Amino acid sequence: MNLRLLLRHLSSISWLIGAAMLFSLPWALPVAGQVDTFESQGFLALLGSMAICFLVGWAMRYAGRKTDGVLYRKEAMAVVGLSWVLATLLGALPYLFSGTARGYDAENEPIRMSFIDCLFEAQSGFSTTGATVLTAVEDPDLVPRCILFWRSGTHFLGGLGIIVLFVAILGQGSAGKVLMRAEMPGPSKEGSQTRMQHTAWVFTGIYIALNAILAILLFFEGMNVYDALCHAFGTLATGGFSTYDASLGHFQSPLIESTVIFFMVLAGTNFTLLYLVILGRPGRLLADIEWRTYAAVILGVTALVVAFGMLHHDFLSESVNSRTAEFFAALRFGLFQVVSIMTTTGYATDDFDSWNSFGRGVLFLLMFVGGCAGSTGGGLKVIRHILFLKVLQRDVEHSFHPTVVRPLRLGGQTIEDPDLGKNIMTYFGLILVIFVFSWMFLVTVEPDETWISGGQSVENKLIDSASSISATLNNIGPGLGTVGATQNYAHFSPLAKLLFIFLMMVGRLEIFAILVLFVPSFWRAR
Amino acid sequence: MNLRLLLRHLSSISWLIGAAMLFSLPWALPVAGQVDTFESQGFLALLGSMAICFLVGWAMRYAGRKTDGVLYRKEAMAVVGLSWVLATLLGALPYLFSGTARGYDAENEPIRMSFIDCLFEAQSGFSTTGATVLTAVEDPDLVPRCILFWRSGTHFLGGLGIIVLFVAILGQGSAGKVLMRAEMPGPSKEGSQTRMQHTAWVFTGIYIALNAILAILLFFEGMNVYDALCHAFGTLATGGFSTYDASLGHFQSPLIESTVIFFMVLAGTNFTLLYLVILGRPGRLLADIEWRTYAAVILGVTALVVAFGMLHHDFLSESVNSRTAEFFAALRFGLFQVVSIMTTTGYATDDFDSWNSFGRGVLFLLMFVGGCAGSTGGGLKVIRHILFLKVLQRDVEHSFHPTVVRPLRLGGQTIEDPDLGKNIMTYFGLILVIFVFSWMFLVTVEPDETWISGGQSVENKLIDSASSISATLNNIGPGLGTVGATQNYAHFSPLAKLLFIFLMMVGRLEIFAILVLFVPSFWRAR
Repeated sequence: MNLRLLLRHLSSISWLIGAAMLFSLPWALPVAGQVDTFESQGFLALLGSMAICFLVGWAMRYAGRKTDGVLYRKEAMAVVGLSWVLATLLGALPYLFSGTARGYDAENEPIRMSFIDCLFEAQSGFSTTGATVLTAVEDPDLVPRCILFWRSGTHFLGGLGIIVLFVAILGQGSAGKVLMRAEMPGPSKEGSQTRMQHTAWVFTGIYIALNAILAILLFFEGMNVYDALCHAFGTLATGGFSTYDASLGHFQSPLIESTVIFFMVLAGTNFTLLYLVILGRPGRLLADIEWRTYAAVILGVTALVVAFGMLHHDFLSESVNSRTAEFFAALRFGLFQVVSIMTTTGYATDDFDSWNSFGRGVLFLLMFVGGCAGSTGGGLKVIRHILFLKVLQRDVEHSFHPTVVRPLRLGGQTIEDPDLGKNIMTYFGLILVIFVFSWMFLVTVEPDETWISGGQSVENKLIDSASSISATLNNIGPGLGTVGATQNYAHFSPLAKLLFIFLMMVGRLEIFAILVLFVPSFWRAR
Repeated sequence: MNLRLLLRHLSSISWLIGAAMLFSLPWALPVAGQVDTFESQGFLALLGSMAICFLVGWAMRYAGRKTDGVLYRKEAMAVVGLSWVLATLLGALPYLFSGTARGYDAENEPIRMSFIDCLFEAQSGFSTTGATVLTAVEDPDLVPRCILFWRSGTHFLGGLGIIVLFVAILGQGSAGKVLMRAEMPGPSKEGSQTRMQHTAWVFTGIYIALNAILAILLFFEGMNVYDALCHAFGTLATGGFSTYDASLGHFQSPLIESTVIFFMVLAGTNFTLLYLVILGRPGRLLADIEWRTYAAVILGVTALVVAFGMLHHDFLSESVNSRTAEFFAALRFGLFQVVSIMTTTGYATDDFDSWNSFGRGVLFLLMFVGGCAGSTGGGLKVIRHILFLKVLQRDVEHSFHPTVVRPLRLGGQTIEDPDLGKNIMTYFGLILVIFVFSWMFLVTVEPDETWISGGQSVENKLIDSASSISATLNNIGPGLGTVGATQNYAHFSPLAKLLFIFLMMVGRLEIFAILVLFVPSFWRAR
């Protein structure tokens, strides 16, 4: 492994993050309208973090100055994995330096974020998970406004990073490959390198444009500029950080909710398809088997959630007292929550943890479905589930027709890659193993006190732990019980938080780029 | 598909089951010492069931008289799957005809078993699961003694069936193949057909001998003949039906418990290895990677269960009040429960549902591990887990060394079969899909009333449902919460019971033989 080469490539990440912090600075000033007095601590923390970013970047570039070798597969994987690690470390600095606090303790003293808390919040941002350890984000004495903007900014950067990565690296493997090759338009005479760069720029353009459009819409729907930007970042990155403790439920606005639903659906859509729609071919959406399934799952599960919600009267309240009002409440909150979980955004407008068992169970499973490949959504991706079921179907038929070898077909086309089926099964297998071992690890290391102190039942430790693993591994954010829609991750032990940081990173980078960092033979000479 | 040929082969199953019922008859007579007065209802029910068995067998043989074709792969699979279906239907008759009752209702009237209840109990017996709908097996007014003996007898038949099947069919596929080929001694000049028959007879002999030895031991340890036989059947088949509501805990005897632990471990061991031990080569046990892992998991998990049990003081009671006594109680109950769940027997000596979350969680996961291939144990089998992890490890290395193709190795030997890795992944995938869909189905169709009426918390519906799916699919019996060690399956709705019947059958026959029965193209002409 050429370590100098790695450092050279990592230096750009460091600079990029430092530069991105610049955009959070203005919000510390009273002129931006978010604060009455200058947030000196937050401002200085950002300045200090930027200085470190540039310094680290420069040191890395200096250490790697004597190499100009090409990135081989192994180096490329290492760069991807280490970029995320580096981003997390640097992105945690503003929280740390500003003395941002998680909340108040029993004596009404602020509880400062520990270093692990800072890493958790940074990783949650970059991985577009949206899980938080902050219990009172609305209090500027605890969380400076400029730091809260940085928090949402990490979503924006993470979403952008994953879109570019998809083109550069992840699009090379299994599922992504199938979609990218077949669908991406452009002059085919160009080399794959040039074409990839072109695609990356197009995707970046779409991503930024969607963020801008949503922010403008939200502004006109009643948010101020600050909230509009933060919620646009949280939506398009399928992140879920809000500037309010009640998440998007704070606004109590059906208009804002439907706008966000629409953009969450877009954020979970393959950017190749978005590009084709922009080019005037909206029919390609429904022609795409992954998007068709994605839309069908959203609609089907919403219908079931509405039906079971009405059966159990989950949506009845003082203001919702007629059968018709109940239906519309169920539709409004049900659709929002299904889209929010399916796209792995994690915004909440209702405490879905108080829903019936079917509703809770189906949301738990939706976490593993996730968005489409080539979107900012997390989870396993719809296309993998389609292929997974196709492989199983083929193998069951193979058990009684052993001589018939049938290739996999997707949307009417034969899949050429003979390894695709194997790769899909391996991916599911790895997710399963990571899920099971993390679950047991969490149940083992986490004291029952975590549940008791949060006023939760220890009886739910098993299911709550499973859902917190799922919510971080699939980059959702909120889960069930102690990590439910109205809860957070503040009360977990440092060891559990380290586990969650690892899971968010593993999930976001689709396992391999992170897992190989722990394989000794990966680091040995090629 | 040659249906006449199927009928011809199924007729033997029908006759075998009829003949086996003969052994339950004597227990209806006072002379056998279990009853004071002749159990006329139970006796007549058994006689009637036998008549139907022989009649059905004769009709099938008559319908299939004009064929003498050979069994092809498809037909063999169909015979295996349909045998189990037929056995369940016929095995349910004694319960039905005798009017066996599940328990008493609020007015103290017996609740007769419905037809679905009878099917459930029969399937649970044949699949060596040991899940029950009977809430008061000790009451001879509800459950005639001869019928209760038939119940344990179905375990004996099921265990025998699975041992023979392993040799004939299952041993041909993936994991079994690897072990059978490499290990099974015998003159290699014989044809595979003769050799298979020889192996089947040897295994049958070992199975019957172990049953007899355990029954004799249990008799000398204080059980009467009836209890000794029933518990021997329940142990060697890794079934778990007891003649007492408190399961094996009824005897409160460390001697009986340790004897049963030893025989449960044997029952979960590959019968090929048992044969080699009998031939005077006990070293082969430890030389076998599957058995070594099996033993290591039992010991390792027991150590953890003991440690966490003592940490949470799960084993403290009025009689256990010193630290030493607590340790021995933890060891006694911990080891028994770990072996009972791991081997998929399901006997209980302690209410493990009141253990701490780690203990409950690890038992839940152990259900999926199961015994060794070629044993009567259920679950996924230890060897599949070993291979599963090896495939994943290989594929992670493959991700950064794409040009290096390394074959799988097991216990120092290279695995020749290139499809083995794929088959393992498919098996895990199918179990996962069946588990997830069954879970959602159960949560959807089962009313909350099931939990409320059983005095259980509806909050636990998700985890209880998951554990009941796992306990039936992996052929354990008891699970967590509403299906816990002190509970049963009586209060579930008929639809849920049908699901459990399906799962027990699918799990026992390692999926394919049952699943293909539902594939239309399987039934079309070859």
